[in-house]
Amino acid sequence: MNIDGIPTRTLRAHPEQRLIDIIDQTRLPHALHWVRVATLTEAAHAIRAMQVRGAPLIGATAAYGLAIALGDDASDARLSEAAALLRSTRPTAVNLHWALARMENVLQPLSTAARCAAAWAEAAAIAEEDVVQNAAIGQHGLKLWQDLIVADGQVLNIMTHCNAGWLATVDHGTALSPVYAAHDAGVPVHVWVSETRPRNQGLLTAWELAQHGVPHTLIADNAAGLLLRQGKVDAVIVGADRIAANGDVANKVGTYLKALACADNGVPFYVAAPRSTLDFACSEGADIPIEERDGDEFRFVHGLDHHAQPAALRQLPADEDVANPAFDVTPNWLVKAIITERGACPASRDGLLGLYPEEADD
Amino acid sequence: MNIDGIPTRTLRAHPEQRLIDIIDQTRLPHALHWVRVATLTEAAHAIRAMQVRGAPLIGATAAYGLAIALGDDASDARLSEAAALLRSTRPTAVNLHWALARMENVLQPLSTAARCAAAWAEAAAIAEEDVVQNAAIGQHGLKLWQDLIVADGQVLNIMTHCNAGWLATVDHGTALSPVYAAHDAGVPVHVWVSETRPRNQGLLTAWELAQHGVPHTLIADNAAGLLLRQGKVDAVIVGADRIAANGDVANKVGTYLKALACADNGVPFYVAAPRSTLDFACSEGADIPIEERDGDEFRFVHGLDHHAQPAALRQLPADEDVANPAFDVTPNWLVKAIITERGACPASRDGLLGLYPEEADD
Repeated sequence: MNIDGIPTRTLRAHPEQRLIDIIDQTRLPHALHWVRVATLTEAAHAIRAMQVRGAPLIGATAAYGLAIALGDDASDARLSEAAALLRSTRPTAVNLHWALARMENVLQPLSTAARCAAAWAEAAAIAEEDVVQNAAIGQHGLKLWQDLIVADGQVLNIMTHCNAGWLATVDHGTALSPVYAAHDAGVPVHVWVSETRPRNQGLLTAWELAQHGVPHTLIADNAAGLLLRQGKVDAVIVGADRIAANGDVANKVGTYLKALACADNGVPFYVAAPRSTLDFACSEGADIPIEERDGDEFRFVHGLDHHAQPAALRQLPADEDVANPAFDVTPNWLVKAIITERGACPASRDGLLGLYPEEADD
Repeated sequence: MNIDGIPTRTLRAHPEQRLIDIIDQTRLPHALHWVRVATLTEAAHAIRAMQVRGAPLIGATAAYGLAIALGDDASDARLSEAAALLRSTRPTAVNLHWALARMENVLQPLSTAARCAAAWAEAAAIAEEDVVQNAAIGQHGLKLWQDLIVADGQVLNIMTHCNAGWLATVDHGTALSPVYAAHDAGVPVHVWVSETRPRNQGLLTAWELAQHGVPHTLIADNAAGLLLRQGKVDAVIVGADRIAANGDVANKVGTYLKALACADNGVPFYVAAPRSTLDFACSEGADIPIEERDGDEFRFVHGLDHHAQPAALRQLPADEDVANPAFDVTPNWLVKAIITERGACPASRDGLLGLYPEEADD
């Protein structure tokens, strides 16, 4: 994709300099700022601190982080230590584990001398596949939208949660890929963008959509149920951080509430994710580890004065107990379909194996 | 109730000076600041700008606002104009309409000379009844908690939404009244406090609970579903802004999502409200007007830097479209019981008429 002719890739690799440039997403939507990642430590920090976020982009960044780590030492010990450090950054998104396992599988058999170049090549392959797969998700999702359009010129009202746009991937996005595909195909589309507390990734989604001229409206997460009950939403689509073998979906906390509201109002709830997000080794959602993040993420608040203007930024008392789980699990029965690069399938073991028969045990 | 021997009343009336003092809740939890309300304009502003909020407190403040308005002119015209202005401040909480109708019913038959003193007396009666009724809600709710306690010393995990504590009423609170009753009775209780975007009334609840030494944990609204699925919540209890004759409940936006998650996890969902919140003239929730508030309430955000420390307060682009409905409607079938000053009843027409037989049409 591109904005005013400039490619939207979230990650720029410079193999000859052994570094990558990433967008510091903690500064969006207020500033579009690129950060250079030249060491393993910087790569691990970028993932942990959410300078890069979104399951597919985390996977690609980790792959490049491993390539960077091998620049001055490509020994077995370095390879496994670097992979372990990167793997420890975030627990829920399985793309991280998938990308690192893929890198290790390729690199371990190679000589130390051959590893560095191979690592950069494999990381690039992971990144390029992400682009191609997400573009395919867009086209498969676009077909599903057609079923929702009952009248010519009808505006398709799509709700999403968090950011699963091109910022969350190497390009195109997962949940937003079918939205961009519809917009590009001339289908009138409007997106309800959920703020996504506590980290406000909805602001990233609003920013992305604004760059591409897609009409959208920002809402508080709390407003999703009302809008669904009022018939103002034709479909909800989200990305995923890990999809278990039975179709249960771990995604940004709050996703489950939207799925419940969809079920209560007969609105289809879709999940879009590439193969790297599927965890066939994880039998069900209850087995997915849920990341608990620092409560400081929403311990800082701003008051509003009595003219509803923001007062200064203030901190809650340090002894205020805060729980901050970053993900929740949506059970498969609430998911109308999972959309991957191979097509759409029911959220079930049979559905997923229908798309990926090579993953069947027998 | 009291904190360190100081009464927790949210409203102090000074009839001899024809003014009231209120807590400016827009400055909480950062500062406990009292504001003097001495004119009709100030009373209307206090309600509209949410210096006072919470359906019962809005009702009591409007009653006093009318008394203040009659200080220099108690004519029929002044009475109806002042009531109309106050009635226009917020559309959803029916307590506002209820209190003003009650005041007008008492005052209209009186001579102009008698109205001002009568208005102060009636407003005080409304306020005092609120205190007594909310205390009764606490005792009725406490009985319901007993059904949830299966083991001695078990900590009762209660989740709430928004603030329906003593700050939202003249005293005691509605949803929090049974929580305080349990705490005072020695039942170990812990409260999950939902942030309640966009106005963050959860911070008021956390502040209140901290004042009274009730253990609690602040969470993002999005986390409610996960906690319910994890079995960490024994009951959810909320207040209400209007309860229709069929038991449908309008309350702070996001309430409906919590009710859905309760139903999906077999956790009881309770609504606590005094008689003044019941609208027997409104047949069902779909007839309740939903207030749309200024999008600026969450157009101001703070970023987090890559150490998860807050960056400066920033404003979203002015052309960013924002929708900000303040309430939603929870259908009666998701509500386990409505708790009023008369007891607990099913959320249905028959249930409510069982408590209030005098409201039956025939």
